[in-house]
Amino acid sequence: MRKNFLCSRLRLLMISAFCSLAFVGVQVPADEGMWTFDNPPTKQLNERYGFTPTPEWLDHVRLSSVRFNDGGSGSFVSPHGLALTNHHVAFGQLQKVSTPQKDYVKDGFYARTPAEELKCPDLEVNVLMSMENVTARVRGVLKSGQSDKEALEARKAEIAKIEKESLDATGLRSDVISLYQGGEYWLYRYKKYTDLRLVFAPERQIAFFGGDPDNFTYPRYDLDMALFRVYENDKPIETPNYLKWNARGAADGELVFVSGNPGSTSRLETVAQIENARDYYLPIRLKILNARLDVLKRYSSEGSEQARQAANQIFGISNSLKDLTGMYSGLLDKTLIEKRQKEEADFRALVAGNPEWNSRYASAWDEIAGAEKKAVSRLKESRYRTTGGRLAGMALNIVQYVAEVKKPDGVRLDGFHDSQLESLRFRLFSPAPVYPHLEETLLAHSLNEAMEELGANDPFVKAALEGGTPKATAETLVAGTKLKEVAFRKSLIEGGEAAVAASTDPMIAMARRIDPLAREIRKWFEDNVESVDTSAGEKIGKARFAVYGKSTYPDATFTLRLSYGAVKGYPMNGTIAPPFTTLYGLYDRAYSFGQKPPFDLPDRFAQRRDTLNLSTPMNFVSTCDIIGGNSGSPVINRQAELVGLIFDGNIEGLVGDYVYNESNNRAVAVHTGVMIEALRKVYEAGALADELEGR
Amino acid sequence: MRKNFLCSRLRLLMISAFCSLAFVGVQVPADEGMWTFDNPPTKQLNERYGFTPTPEWLDHVRLSSVRFNDGGSGSFVSPHGLALTNHHVAFGQLQKVSTPQKDYVKDGFYARTPAEELKCPDLEVNVLMSMENVTARVRGVLKSGQSDKEALEARKAEIAKIEKESLDATGLRSDVISLYQGGEYWLYRYKKYTDLRLVFAPERQIAFFGGDPDNFTYPRYDLDMALFRVYENDKPIETPNYLKWNARGAADGELVFVSGNPGSTSRLETVAQIENARDYYLPIRLKILNARLDVLKRYSSEGSEQARQAANQIFGISNSLKDLTGMYSGLLDKTLIEKRQKEEADFRALVAGNPEWNSRYASAWDEIAGAEKKAVSRLKESRYRTTGGRLAGMALNIVQYVAEVKKPDGVRLDGFHDSQLESLRFRLFSPAPVYPHLEETLLAHSLNEAMEELGANDPFVKAALEGGTPKATAETLVAGTKLKEVAFRKSLIEGGEAAVAASTDPMIAMARRIDPLAREIRKWFEDNVESVDTSAGEKIGKARFAVYGKSTYPDATFTLRLSYGAVKGYPMNGTIAPPFTTLYGLYDRAYSFGQKPPFDLPDRFAQRRDTLNLSTPMNFVSTCDIIGGNSGSPVINRQAELVGLIFDGNIEGLVGDYVYNESNNRAVAVHTGVMIEALRKVYEAGALADELEGR
Repeated sequence: MRKNFLCSRLRLLMISAFCSLAFVGVQVPADEGMWTFDNPPTKQLNERYGFTPTPEWLDHVRLSSVRFNDGGSGSFVSPHGLALTNHHVAFGQLQKVSTPQKDYVKDGFYARTPAEELKCPDLEVNVLMSMENVTARVRGVLKSGQSDKEALEARKAEIAKIEKESLDATGLRSDVISLYQGGEYWLYRYKKYTDLRLVFAPERQIAFFGGDPDNFTYPRYDLDMALFRVYENDKPIETPNYLKWNARGAADGELVFVSGNPGSTSRLETVAQIENARDYYLPIRLKILNARLDVLKRYSSEGSEQARQAANQIFGISNSLKDLTGMYSGLLDKTLIEKRQKEEADFRALVAGNPEWNSRYASAWDEIAGAEKKAVSRLKESRYRTTGGRLAGMALNIVQYVAEVKKPDGVRLDGFHDSQLESLRFRLFSPAPVYPHLEETLLAHSLNEAMEELGANDPFVKAALEGGTPKATAETLVAGTKLKEVAFRKSLIEGGEAAVAASTDPMIAMARRIDPLAREIRKWFEDNVESVDTSAGEKIGKARFAVYGKSTYPDATFTLRLSYGAVKGYPMNGTIAPPFTTLYGLYDRAYSFGQKPPFDLPDRFAQRRDTLNLSTPMNFVSTCDIIGGNSGSPVINRQAELVGLIFDGNIEGLVGDYVYNESNNRAVAVHTGVMIEALRKVYEAGALADELEGR
Repeated sequence: MRKNFLCSRLRLLMISAFCSLAFVGVQVPADEGMWTFDNPPTKQLNERYGFTPTPEWLDHVRLSSVRFNDGGSGSFVSPHGLALTNHHVAFGQLQKVSTPQKDYVKDGFYARTPAEELKCPDLEVNVLMSMENVTARVRGVLKSGQSDKEALEARKAEIAKIEKESLDATGLRSDVISLYQGGEYWLYRYKKYTDLRLVFAPERQIAFFGGDPDNFTYPRYDLDMALFRVYENDKPIETPNYLKWNARGAADGELVFVSGNPGSTSRLETVAQIENARDYYLPIRLKILNARLDVLKRYSSEGSEQARQAANQIFGISNSLKDLTGMYSGLLDKTLIEKRQKEEADFRALVAGNPEWNSRYASAWDEIAGAEKKAVSRLKESRYRTTGGRLAGMALNIVQYVAEVKKPDGVRLDGFHDSQLESLRFRLFSPAPVYPHLEETLLAHSLNEAMEELGANDPFVKAALEGGTPKATAETLVAGTKLKEVAFRKSLIEGGEAAVAASTDPMIAMARRIDPLAREIRKWFEDNVESVDTSAGEKIGKARFAVYGKSTYPDATFTLRLSYGAVKGYPMNGTIAPPFTTLYGLYDRAYSFGQKPPFDLPDRFAQRRDTLNLSTPMNFVSTCDIIGGNSGSPVINRQAELVGLIFDGNIEGLVGDYVYNESNNRAVAVHTGVMIEALRKVYEAGALADELEGR
C-alpha cells in the first residue's frame, strides 16, 4: 500500500534533516516523474505517446483531484460530489464511525439512501484551485551578510505572511511550498471540505485480500476502494469537475495518467544525505517501528475489541515496515549508491568548471555533509523524546497552541501559522472515540522506550516520569485526564494561556513539562541542520537550473502531481507479471492457500462467485511513477476518463524513494471493471453503480 | 523444467572435468538430499516426520520407478504397464511419431484402444533391479607406485570386466557407477524395456502453459504429463510394482517422497572446481547455447514445418539457458563461494590435524586445482571441435564403433563397452525421421563456429572443411550422405572396419578425418585431468568417510535416488508462494495476458471450462531435493501412493546444483487431481482415468 504514513510520521517528529534537499542533475528518462501541473512533461508525452494535454484538460484533471489530508489522494467521480479513494485511506475514518457492535471495517458499509450516509468525524479533503510562483517574493527578503539561521527565519516569516494574506483575501487554504529544494517557491490555494460522508466500503478482507504478505506485491487481487460524498452546507456539492467512469478500462500498452499527491521522495538528495539515511535514520526507524508493532500486536491479542481498535495502526506500521525494509535493501545495493555518486560527481565537476557557479554554489555539498554529521549527534534524542498515543499528542498540541497564537505569525512554530490553524482545530476537536486502554499501552511503551534508550537521567525522561514508572505514569495520566472529552479540549483552547497554565489536568501538566525540551531540540535542528540544508539546498537548486535548465520535476511534497505511463507487465522473479489480473485469480489465490487468512474470502464473495463474470479485470499495473501518498489517486486515459484507482506499488519499486526504474517499477491499481461488477453483483449497489456510470 | 539436458550434453562433450569430484564435509540439514536406496535417510525421516520406510516399501518404490534414458524419470501407474512421465520428457518421441500432417505435439494424442497405441522409435527405459557394492573389487586392481594415468586405466578395465560378467550372467543392463567421488563403486543392474507405446499426451500448449517465461518458476499451471505403455514380446507387461493413484493428493505440510534419477550435482566439488565453472565453463557454455538458439530460431521462423522440426531442440536449449543462467547468477553470489570456502577450509584443517590422514589425503585439493588449471588451457578446443546435427554425430559413432569393438572391453572408449553396445545400437538404428535442411543448418553453424573460434588453421577445422566453406561443406555432406537410411547405418556396423574404411559416403569420410583429433583431445583430458581428478577425488572421498562417516548422500549421477520433504509454500518476491495452485489460476493467467502466447489456452480448455471444477488443485510444491533428470518422477505419500508428478523446480532453487536451501528451494509437481479431472472432462478419456484410479 502506498499510503503516506511515512510523510506524516516525519512531520510529527519535526526533523527537517530527513526532507530531501539537494537537487542534482539527471536526464529524466521516459515515464519517470511526478510533475507539477504548471510544468507538465509535454515534450515526453508528445515524443513517446503523441499526446499533448490542453490547458483545459489539465485544469479539469486538477479540479477533479482531491487530496485526503490524512495521507492519501482521491477524485470526484460523479457530478453530485462522490469522491473515490482507497479503503486503506478510509480505514481510519471507518474505524472511527464503527462501534464494538457495528464494525464497518470488517463488514463493509453501503448507504442505500442519502439519509444513511455516515458523517466522518475528522476528515478534511482539499482541491487545488490555483498555483502561483512566489519565488521572487520569498527570495526578496534575503540580504547579503545574513547567517543561514537569520535567512531561515526571514524566509519563514515571509512565507507565513504570504499565506496569511492569501487566506484573508480568498478564504482558501493557502500553503507556500518549496519545490526543487528551494529552487522555486509556490503558493498553492485549496478549496477545503470537512463534511464528508461515507457512502460505500467493502469488507476489509477483500479490500486488503492477501494482507501483509501480498502488500507491496503484484499480481494482486484487492478491491481497495471506498466512496465518500462531499457535502457543503449540509448538501452534496454539485460540480462539473469529475472524472467520467470507463468500466472497460485501459488496454495493454495504453497511455494513462495518475493525478495525486505523492508524499515525499529523496531522488535529489546528496550522497551524504543518502548515506546518513542508510546508516542512521532508517535503522533507527525500523527499530522503533518494530518495537511499536510488537506492542500493538500484543494489545490486539487481548481480545476482538482490542484487535478492532488497534487494526488501523497495525496496518499502518506493518505497511511502513515493509516499505522501509524494501527501501533499506535498495540503499544497501552498492550499484544504487555508485550511480548517485557518479551523478553527483559529474554535476559538481560542471559547477566547478564555471568560475561564477563555482564561487556561488560549489560549497553547498560540503555544507550539507557537515550538517548531516551534526544531525546524527542528536538523532537518538530526537527519536526517543516523544510520547505515544493520541491524548499525549493532543496535550502537547494544546500547550503549544496557546503560546504560539499570541506571537506574530512569522515567528511561530511550523504547524501553528494562521493558515494552518483551522485544520489543526478540526483535528483537535474531532469527536472520534478515544480508547483509554490503548492510550495507556502506547504511552507506557513510549515512556519505557525513552527511559531504556536515553537513560533515567535524561531531562525528558525525568520531566515525563517525575520518578514514576512508565506503566504507572501512563495509567495515572490516561485515567486522570479529561482530554478524552472534546468540550474540555475546546475549553483549554478558548481559555488560552491562562487556562492551560492553571489546568490541573495531569496530561496537560506533563505536556507543560516536556514542552521546553521539545522546543529546544526542534530549535537546535532548525539552527544547526535545517538552516544549513535550506541555504545549501537552495544553492544546489539554483546550480541545477543554471547547469541543466528546468527539464525535470521536483521531489514529492504531498502536493498535486501528474504522472504518466503505459499499462504494462514486467519481468518478475524469473517470469513475467501480467498487465492485468482477473477475478479468476482471486479465487485461485484463496483456494491455493486453502482460504487460510489472510487469503480467506468474505462470505459474500464465496457465496456469489457463480454470479460473477470471472474474467473481469481486477487489478492492473502501469509504469506511472508514484510513491506513498498516491494511494487513492485516479488512473485516467487520454480522455480523462477514470480507468483505475491506484492503491499500491510493487516490491521492485520500493527503492522508488531514491530512483525510478521503468523496467520494473509499477503502480498497482484497482480496475474500474471490477468495481462495477462487485457493486452490482456482490453488494447489490446497483443505484450507486448507475451513478458512477452516469446512467 | 528439470529434464536432464545438462547431463546429456556433458556426456556428449566428454569432458570429465565437469563432473563433480570432491566430497567435503557438511552436516546434512533436514529435507536435503538425493539418497541412494541402499542408504535411505532413516534417521532424518524418523526424527522429523516419525516415519520409517520398511525394506518392502523401499523395494516396491524402487521397482515402480522407471528411468527414461533420454534424460528423465517416470513410474508405473497401473498393473498393465502404464508408465507416467512428463510431456516434456516425451517431447522428443512425440515429435518423432508426428508428421507434417499429424502433429501430436500440437494437438495431443489419446489411444482409445490398444491398437491405437503408437510405438516409439527409440525410447529405452530402465528399472533398477539390484545394487551391489563392488568398491573392494575395483580398488583391488590398484597397485602402489602406479601413476594416476595407469590407475585410471586399471580401474576402467576392471569396471568394464565387472559389467561384462554381470551382463553375461544375468542378461540385465549392468552399469558400475562411482558414488561419493570414488568413495564407493556400485554395480547397478537394470531391466531394460525398448518397446514403449504412446497412450496419452495433452497439447503441448497446456503441458508447457506459460512457455519459457514461466519455465523454472512458480506459481504454475501446467498439465505436463504423458502416458506410455510398456510392452514386452508385443504384449503389455503385467506387474505388481506400480504406484496406486491418489487423486486427493497430499495435504499442506504432509510428508512426501520423490523417487527418480537426478542427473548431476556439484555439491561436493572443491572450491577450485567451482571457481573454474564460474569463470570458464559456464560462460563458454552460455555463449555456445545462445548462438545455437539463435540459429534454431531463425530456422524455425522459415515456416510452420520448420518450426515443428526445431521445437524440441529450441525448448531444450531455452530450458538449459534459463537453468544455467540461474546457476551462474548463484555462483556470482559471493556468499555461496564464501560458504564453500569455509566448509573446505574446515574439512582440510581436520584432515591436516591427523598425521595419517594428512599424509594420505591432504595433497588432493592442490592436485585437483592443478588439473583444473590444465583443463582450462584446452577448454576452447574441447568445446568447439564438435559437429552439429544427428547425422554427423552418428557418423562419428559408427567410425569409432567399428574400431572399438575389436579391442578388449577394458581398454575401449567410454560408451563402447559391451554392456553399452545394445543401447547404442538401439539409438543408431532408430527409424526416427531425419530433417535434411535442419541437419545442414546445424552442421554449417557448428563448422562456422569452429572456424571463427579456433581459426582456419586449426587441425580440426582443416580436417572437417578441407578448404571448403562451412555452408557449402554442410550442404554437400548432408545431400551426399546415405546415413539418413537406417539400412545404410546397419550395413556399416555389420560390415565393420573394412566397410567403414571403404565407404565413400562423404559424412563417414569426414568422421574418419576428425576421429583422430577427437580421440587425441579425449585422451589428453583423460591423462591430464580425469586421471588426476579421479585419484584425488578418491582421496577426498576417503578422507570424508574417515572424518565424518557415511552420514550423507553422494552427488547425483542420473541413477535412482529417493528425496523427501513436505508440501510447503515459501517466501517469494516479497510475498508467499502457495503450496498449491488451482485451475482458477490457469484461467487467470491466460486472461491476464489476454491469451497472448505463451499464455494461450488450447481450444479444448477454453471450450470445456464450465464443465471443470475450477478449484481442483493443478500444481503444487514440496521441499524435496531434486535436479535436472528428476522430470517425470513420481511424488508419493507414506503409503507409496502417487500424489503428484515432478516437472520442474523453482527459480530460487536454480543454484541447487551447488547448494540446497530448504527455505525456498522447491520441487514443482502436477497434482494427481488435475490429471484425472482433465482426462475425464477435457479429453473424454474416462477409460484411461478408470485404469489409473483402479476402477
